Amino acid sequence: MSIVLSGMRPTGKLHLGNLYGALQNWINLQDKYECYYFVADWHALTTGFNESKEIYNNTLEMIIDWLAFGLDPQKTTLFIQSLVKEHAELFLLLSMITPVGKLERVPSYKDQIAQLGESRTANYGFLGYPVLMSADIIIYKANYVPVGIDQLAHLEFTREIVRSFNHLVQKEAFIEPEPLLSEFPKILGTDGRKMSKSYGNAIYLADSEEQTVQKIKTMFTDPRRIRKTDPGVPKECGVFMLHNIFTDSQVYNEIETSCTNASIGCTDCKNMLIKNLNNKLRPIRETRRYLQENKKNEIIDNIKESSKTASLVAKVTLEAAKEAIFGNYLG
Amino acid sequence: MSIVLSGMRPTGKLHLGNLYGALQNWINLQDKYECYYFVADWHALTTGFNESKEIYNNTLEMIIDWLAFGLDPQKTTLFIQSLVKEHAELFLLLSMITPVGKLERVPSYKDQIAQLGESRTANYGFLGYPVLMSADIIIYKANYVPVGIDQLAHLEFTREIVRSFNHLVQKEAFIEPEPLLSEFPKILGTDGRKMSKSYGNAIYLADSEEQTVQKIKTMFTDPRRIRKTDPGVPKECGVFMLHNIFTDSQVYNEIETSCTNASIGCTDCKNMLIKNLNNKLRPIRETRRYLQENKKNEIIDNIKESSKTASLVAKVTLEAAKEAIFGNYLG
Ligand code: SF4
Ligand code: SF4
Repeated sequence: MSIVLSGMRPTGKLHLGNLYGALQNWINLQDKYECYYFVADWHALTTGFNESKEIYNNTLEMIIDWLAFGLDPQKTTLFIQSLVKEHAELFLLLSMITPVGKLERVPSYKDQIAQLGESRTANYGFLGYPVLMSADIIIYKANYVPVGIDQLAHLEFTREIVRSFNHLVQKEAFIEPEPLLSEFPKILGTDGRKMSKSYGNAIYLADSEEQTVQKIKTMFTDPRRIRKTDPGVPKECGVFMLHNIFTDSQVYNEIETSCTNASIGCTDCKNMLIKNLNNKLRPIRETRRYLQENKKNEIIDNIKESSKTASLVAKVTLEAAKEAIFGNYLG
Repeated sequence: MSIVLSGMRPTGKLHLGNLYGALQNWINLQDKYECYYFVADWHALTTGFNESKEIYNNTLEMIIDWLAFGLDPQKTTLFIQSLVKEHAELFLLLSMITPVGKLERVPSYKDQIAQLGESRTANYGFLGYPVLMSADIIIYKANYVPVGIDQLAHLEFTREIVRSFNHLVQKEAFIEPEPLLSEFPKILGTDGRKMSKSYGNAIYLADSEEQTVQKIKTMFTDPRRIRKTDPGVPKECGVFMLHNIFTDSQVYNEIETSCTNASIGCTDCKNMLIKNLNNKLRPIRETRRYLQENKKNEIIDNIKESSKTASLVAKVTLEAAKEAIFGNYLG
């Protein structure tokens, strides 16, 4: 069975964008592949050292969301990056064959500096982010990495590192991962921008039904619809994008027509969304609450255990890599 | 007892410059401090990935020299850097708080690029060499690091990293190491340049007495002494520098006078050196040969064991550092 690897930074409670983007995709893959999914806590430090104290709690909240939403630890190997020491060792090893110039030319490097500012991105670890990411992938001999089209360049970086290493040691020590191109539904936040924790515009699985009602009631809709009689363009409305997820396709199509010909008002449209969304999330939210209240310690113990399993797999690759470099290795 | 840390890159058999420089200093310190001495094999990769296959054998040859020359594994903890995984983890951790600009400004960075060429120094690991060195020191809570005056800047780098980290986590998580300023005798090679493996001008402990004779016979002397009647300046002669180590001080002073007033010829001067040097090294060379022929496996087993001891010490610092960053840490 082919191996898939993917990680998420521990940002805390997941919002609809995370759930119906990356996480739904993970769940779709868990029956078809041998999947390794991880909390990328080292990666969180590359740009967020000052908020490091939140990582523990964010990790826990995120794992609870994973499980509540349907990620199955019986089918996949879930782990925490910093608990698998081999990632750090392979990072160090790969750092010896990665040109600095290549890292500086990674497109997201300059973008992120512009976006997050010098103070959060000036560190050596941030520059080396693609090296760590490559170690994450390589160490599990991943055949596939689910990526959006904008992340293809990152994966190409890893593929080049794999080729360099294999060339240097004159054997197929590492496996070149292939992209598993994934399309993620576009999900907007309450303010009409991309849904994002940092924008404060997100709806969370952990939100109560009342919080959800408040958020959707104040959500931006198509600005063309100043009066109820103004026709709208639903494809550009965040409420309509959520209907795509939570409303069955027949009703969804009707809303599209009614909005376009101004036969439905935004308030009614939102009320339908509120009902469908809360109905659909209710059992998941109940599971979440149950896990949160009763299973925290068990969840921690389990992920520590499965991190050990991941570590055993990682060790095999790492020892082979050291052997390939050092020859008759002492270890 | 204060803690001392120092490492040597695995360059293979040690020459007189290594033995009477760094190694003699290590031996002097082993009674006064709790010493951690290590084979810096990861560091060897920063500039020598292409010769990586030699690291294993070079490590073994070097450790045999250490032991033959008098380093006592009962008094010190000897270990191999790559066998103590915690170095890699602390390297990764420190990379998150080390500014790239600071690394680019380390004086030796540009010097080494000029000296070794772009192809050996273009990698990310080479840029991060001071981060790895800092991890090496910090992880054993070293109070002192023996350094020559030209390496003070490197240690200052580590001290700054320690201060940054302690400031970030608001506690004295790491200890700021102090320099143990050491003077190393000047030792020239057979061609009059600094003795160095890469110049091919070195005399090795592992050399036979015959090889030593040949090397010293062809050794550069003071070029002013074209004829035996030309007075010399012994202080600038590599042969005289070796007399400083191998010849007792009375005879040494006599040679100085005789060379200055041209009453001794270089051939006689060299013959005295050959005799004294071979005599002094004879028992050490015998020990070396004995270890080489009979104790290789035991030596490997022992350093693997003492690397585990080092790892236990390193783990304590690392776990405390992770706790300081991540707070309620899962590990
Ligand atoms: S009717 Fe619905 S889809 Fe149309 S603009 Fe209003 S909220 Fe958006
Ligand atoms: S006599 Fe000895 S010290 Fe003087 S130049 Fe010759 S070799 Fe050197």
